Amino acid sequence: MKESFKPGTLLYPLPVVMVSCGTMEGEKNIITVAWTGTINSDPPMCYISVRKSRHSHSIISQTKEFVINLVTEDLAYATDWCGVRSGKDYDKFREMKLTPVAGQVVKAPLIEESPLSLECKVVEVKELGSHDMFIAEVVAVDAEDSLIDKTTGQFQLNHAHPVAYSHGKYFKLGEKLGSFGYSVKKKARKK
Amino acid sequence: MKESFKPGTLLYPLPVVMVSCGTMEGEKNIITVAWTGTINSDPPMCYISVRKSRHSHSIISQTKEFVINLVTEDLAYATDWCGVRSGKDYDKFREMKLTPVAGQVVKAPLIEESPLSLECKVVEVKELGSHDMFIAEVVAVDAEDSLIDKTTGQFQLNHAHPVAYSHGKYFKLGEKLGSFGYSVKKKARKK
Repeated sequence: MKESFKPGTLLYPLPVVMVSCGTMEGEKNIITVAWTGTINSDPPMCYISVRKSRHSHSIISQTKEFVINLVTEDLAYATDWCGVRSGKDYDKFREMKLTPVAGQVVKAPLIEESPLSLECKVVEVKELGSHDMFIAEVVAVDAEDSLIDKTTGQFQLNHAHPVAYSHGKYFKLGEKLGSFGYSVKKKARKK
Repeated sequence: MKESFKPGTLLYPLPVVMVSCGTMEGEKNIITVAWTGTINSDPPMCYISVRKSRHSHSIISQTKEFVINLVTEDLAYATDWCGVRSGKDYDKFREMKLTPVAGQVVKAPLIEESPLSLECKVVEVKELGSHDMFIAEVVAVDAEDSLIDKTTGQFQLNHAHPVAYSHGKYFKLGEKLGSFGYSVKKKARKK
């Protein structure tokens, strides 16, 4: 049986990522975001939604670029901390012992400890109410080389122990249920 | 060490949801989507990105509404199947033994077997390239009543065994790493 709930943001599990930004000395910052996702495959595009009151909002509004850094179990504590503290009060890289490194295309720093960083350039900002949506194109990708399969050249993200965010809690990924298309692959179904 | 990858859609883990649509008899359909997320908290807004070639694309373009149905472990097989088969060829509700039920606000059906359904009205369609992004407002929420805590009235989504999609694979959620804010709560850290 279904019960009526008031309209809300109950779409889960979501990614939780550390977004790094800032191009000038002393400006660099990290904001944790779960309102993020892929919006287009070709060209690759994604978004982050950020409250106007956040320190990173003004940085990204000015610089028009940011980096989405995927999060692993080892980074969960720093991810949470960067989500509740403000860059107005702390140098988050220093406090969380994270290492800013130069990207390929954007001037905003990547987080070295993240297994995968998506360098993004903002193409549009949409004001939606509580949040502004920064719509962006992924202009470069930086992957931890130890996660690249030497034989296939494929990036093995799921070997990096990614973290999901679901309804106020951070979770490890658990048992694999299947690969895309498994429901129509007879061999896979017999396993 | 970081290695350069070509720009791509590597933001994971993502939600994977069954989107139901169609308002007329014989029109109802289900499409599986991972390019989805929350874009605004107040008012609650989310999006789905869908290729123009998909059967549901034309339905949603015409009806301007859809329902996001969250997925559990029990629904993983149907979720995968609805992602690889087309509503042009199958009645997906019938094939997957899913039950269409009336929503509160939209005319598109909910999926009864889903623990939580978000009824959505499209407010804008953005053509991005391979995909069109349907930007929508959440106008009603329908929750499985057995998942509502009788004491607190809170919906316990994480008791429903939600599924995450990461880099081509479906996963159960695993061990809990912490709750939002745990990094700054001294009591929680001592546990």
